Amino acid sequence: MNKKKGFNPVWTDRAPEIGTYRSIFKWGAPDRFKHPNAGFYALLKDELGVTDADFQKKRNQGNEPVRCDIPIGLSTDQIHKFKEMVGEDNVATDDYARVKYSNGKTAEEIMKLRREIVDDLADLVVHPRHKEDVHHIVAYCNEQRIPVYVHGGGSSVTMGFRCVKGGISLDMGKHMNKLLELNEANHTATVQPGILGPQYEDILNNAPSLMQAKRKYTCGHFPQSFEFSSVGGWIAASGSGQQSTYYGDMCDIVISQEYVTPVGEFKTLDYPGTATGPKVNDIMKGSEGTFGVMVGATLKIFRYMPENRQRFAFVFPDWPSAVDGAREVCQGEFGMPSVFRISDPEETEIAMRLYGIDGTVIDKGISLRGYKPGKRCICVGQAEGSLSYAKHVKKNIKKVCRANKAMYIGGYPMKNWEHGRYADPYMREDLDDFGIMVDTLEAGVTWDNIHELYAGVRKFIKSRKRTACMTHASHFYPQGTNLYFIFISRMDDIDEYRKFQSGIIDRIQDNGGSLSHHHGVGKMISPWIKKHLGSQQMDVLRALKHHFDPNGIMNPGGTLGFD
Amino acid sequence: MNKKKGFNPVWTDRAPEIGTYRSIFKWGAPDRFKHPNAGFYALLKDELGVTDADFQKKRNQGNEPVRCDIPIGLSTDQIHKFKEMVGEDNVATDDYARVKYSNGKTAEEIMKLRREIVDDLADLVVHPRHKEDVHHIVAYCNEQRIPVYVHGGGSSVTMGFRCVKGGISLDMGKHMNKLLELNEANHTATVQPGILGPQYEDILNNAPSLMQAKRKYTCGHFPQSFEFSSVGGWIAASGSGQQSTYYGDMCDIVISQEYVTPVGEFKTLDYPGTATGPKVNDIMKGSEGTFGVMVGATLKIFRYMPENRQRFAFVFPDWPSAVDGAREVCQGEFGMPSVFRISDPEETEIAMRLYGIDGTVIDKGISLRGYKPGKRCICVGQAEGSLSYAKHVKKNIKKVCRANKAMYIGGYPMKNWEHGRYADPYMREDLDDFGIMVDTLEAGVTWDNIHELYAGVRKFIKSRKRTACMTHASHFYPQGTNLYFIFISRMDDIDEYRKFQSGIIDRIQDNGGSLSHHHGVGKMISPWIKKHLGSQQMDVLRALKHHFDPNGIMNPGGTLGFD
Repeated sequence: MNKKKGFNPVWTDRAPEIGTYRSIFKWGAPDRFKHPNAGFYALLKDELGVTDADFQKKRNQGNEPVRCDIPIGLSTDQIHKFKEMVGEDNVATDDYARVKYSNGKTAEEIMKLRREIVDDLADLVVHPRHKEDVHHIVAYCNEQRIPVYVHGGGSSVTMGFRCVKGGISLDMGKHMNKLLELNEANHTATVQPGILGPQYEDILNNAPSLMQAKRKYTCGHFPQSFEFSSVGGWIAASGSGQQSTYYGDMCDIVISQEYVTPVGEFKTLDYPGTATGPKVNDIMKGSEGTFGVMVGATLKIFRYMPENRQRFAFVFPDWPSAVDGAREVCQGEFGMPSVFRISDPEETEIAMRLYGIDGTVIDKGISLRGYKPGKRCICVGQAEGSLSYAKHVKKNIKKVCRANKAMYIGGYPMKNWEHGRYADPYMREDLDDFGIMVDTLEAGVTWDNIHELYAGVRKFIKSRKRTACMTHASHFYPQGTNLYFIFISRMDDIDEYRKFQSGIIDRIQDNGGSLSHHHGVGKMISPWIKKHLGSQQMDVLRALKHHFDPNGIMNPGGTLGFD
Repeated sequence: MNKKKGFNPVWTDRAPEIGTYRSIFKWGAPDRFKHPNAGFYALLKDELGVTDADFQKKRNQGNEPVRCDIPIGLSTDQIHKFKEMVGEDNVATDDYARVKYSNGKTAEEIMKLRREIVDDLADLVVHPRHKEDVHHIVAYCNEQRIPVYVHGGGSSVTMGFRCVKGGISLDMGKHMNKLLELNEANHTATVQPGILGPQYEDILNNAPSLMQAKRKYTCGHFPQSFEFSSVGGWIAASGSGQQSTYYGDMCDIVISQEYVTPVGEFKTLDYPGTATGPKVNDIMKGSEGTFGVMVGATLKIFRYMPENRQRFAFVFPDWPSAVDGAREVCQGEFGMPSVFRISDPEETEIAMRLYGIDGTVIDKGISLRGYKPGKRCICVGQAEGSLSYAKHVKKNIKKVCRANKAMYIGGYPMKNWEHGRYADPYMREDLDDFGIMVDTLEAGVTWDNIHELYAGVRKFIKSRKRTACMTHASHFYPQGTNLYFIFISRMDDIDEYRKFQSGIIDRIQDNGGSLSHHHGVGKMISPWIKKHLGSQQMDVLRALKHHFDPNGIMNPGGTLGFD
């Protein structure tokens, strides 16, 4: 694709040294990279007003070994007690582990780690082996008033598990990462919370050979963090996968949960339908580790039939047409697509490059038909399920999109999106290396408010000079969707970043978006939550918090607007 | 159909006198009736071992005017205060109103009213005009410690609103019964809780002429009590409609709720997807009036396209085949039917008569093909949505059912079911008039436990001599379904009935069913709820109860297992 010859930055292509800050904040696998391609690089320069000269020298790469001067805030007796509970091997006190298991993937955390700034640190990292360990740990921490932060995959972008009050980071990933039961009659799987996406999906996909199952299954939940996030995290933060329009959000997928809390332990019931009062399973969804430690979950699983996927892509003449088309797809009652994404004009121009459309026959066709850059909007997606269902859905989507002035451009762009779906976050390091911040915020929205939210948030982001703002909607319901804002700008100063981010959240709030569609609240969005929910609803959540965790040991320090 | 000449009981065919007990306990419209047809009557005699002689003399008809000797437990000042708040016309103190608004439709309540036994009585009936009235009433009742029971349509079969501690019965039906907003962009409607099913559905069906809407809509929720139950009641008791397999249960349909509680007022947010902690909307679903008074709700609505309905019916050779077929329909990912019902062998024989199949060409075809009475199971249903979707679903259901040894018998039986769908409860009075009790209990169940639950409950019911037990499943999920048990027996004694009912609930519990799939808990099932949920989960619900209603004025006396 790189047709124009010229300068290309030297992106980092080597795994970070073990023990460095970079090895903590780098996204994904140490030895995997995705660099901005030439088209994207050219566009970045245009949009951000940077030049090749700005891409000569890397800064704040975090290549130094982690070291911190924050003493462990627990007594020798306490540390000894933890070692007794879970075994010496499962307690870590070294700087590296403490930093690694205390930090998620927010822009702010990355900025800090790049600058070797370490605060908000767990005293210990504890790797429980099983439910019984968790039982003893929670009981002891409750007695000793030691904060407990639960770490799943570590991919939180809301400071969900950030250990702002010290205490322990309870890592579920080392041991509590098993699939415990596959129930083919019920189409459910029971897992421990620390299992990561690929591990879980692989077992389901290969259930016949691995578990003597009759069929192959899929989990149906594929967030962008899929490869490095845990099932427990998906539930705790109320996540949504990129195929949620068909499979449902995590809150629809989780059938039951098992918890150890400071006041006791329970497993909710497995009925898919029941009328026995408010459902404790619902109450625990999205509780972000503030009520207790999840030790198990039973989830819906679905038949794995990738051979039936029907891919499609369209170009709409403008954003309002794309929104109208998407709404009709959701409300037309002909079945739902699994992936469905509409990009606004600014994202479309980047997507044309990222999906490899730029400069192809498709590109020419689009232009010939009068779909203008800066107005046109790309849509990619796929239908799943049984073959005839998937075909039926695709056929109807074509009809609806065409009725909304879209041009069908085949399945090729969707294939490209699919190919790169988990790789985009890798580009963050490349940009950060040259002082370019890329980050995202997102919101749930009802159909009748989508244009107001879009315009209000975008106006603020674009009010900052030389800032790219790409927006898409990617999770659809008959009643609304989400808006996902990606913003890119030169920015080096943490306080400046905080102020900018805070301004965006303000605009989401002011323009009627929900504060998060699927990232969660954590400690990052929590300052806004009380106004968002209102004091009456906050009091309901506080009553639950007080019930489960009277001593405030579970994920303390602001999560969900508590304490 | 009545081919055999012979004795036919004289069923009651006159509306009850105004002011009588019968006018309270009679199901539905005073002047509507559905009598057992000759086929059903013949079968009843066979099954219950009764003869024509038992149908000569009616008993306990409740034709006497309501009178009770329970004095009003409120002071003159308090009564005066309520009249001041809502106006003289909206407070009733007469015996008839007090009895009417304190009684639901359980077998036990009907048995009592037939015998002029009145206990558990509201002191006053109050008809609030609007949210502000509710605000003043709840504040005053909280201050004065006066119990508040909320009455919607009055169709509870769990003693949901039964006024066991006196106080006021707050009737939402007289004034707070409006559709407040139709939002076509979001496909939602906002209503007051007292609106009844037909009123709500009529407005939606006729939205273009009544509300200048662009389309016709449907509410998608059609419980058997549809004609005499309120939207508020649907939500409060966590109901399911007969088309829930497609449209979802009420917990899926309700987008947001507005409440007045003893500690404050709030309206939950309208986002179809959001990740901002546990959802207060979820917490309020199924709370059965124990947390506060619902004053508004926003619900999903759907396009009204009855012309697209695709009806079907099948006969399976036996119950296991019917269950296997139904499970495959739910798990096959080709779209879901709206109505789907499988009847066990005993219900099938009655259904053949009620659906008018008995003695027809279809009947002969079924027998010729070797589907044996006492083993064969009927299935009726329909698909909805867009025309091509509905056709696609029906086509696939045919394929699945045939693969499970079923014979397709056309759409005619489904038409008949549809025709009589709301009328069956009218037969209860006819049977009760001759001392024959007919009642139902139901449970949610996972697929892997359906046969155990079916066998366990049925064994107990059939252990009572001369008792008919008809069972069906009618709400389907990929993970399970419900079992609905209808039992008919001669039974005159209230204590005997209680013991029998209690034995059935024990068996539901012992055999792993949920205590209710869609009737709710009320004060009838509540003695079992703590064991069902476990003490830890009960404590969670109690914490919420304590938060919302510290003085215990909201639906006190056992509902949901509280107090």
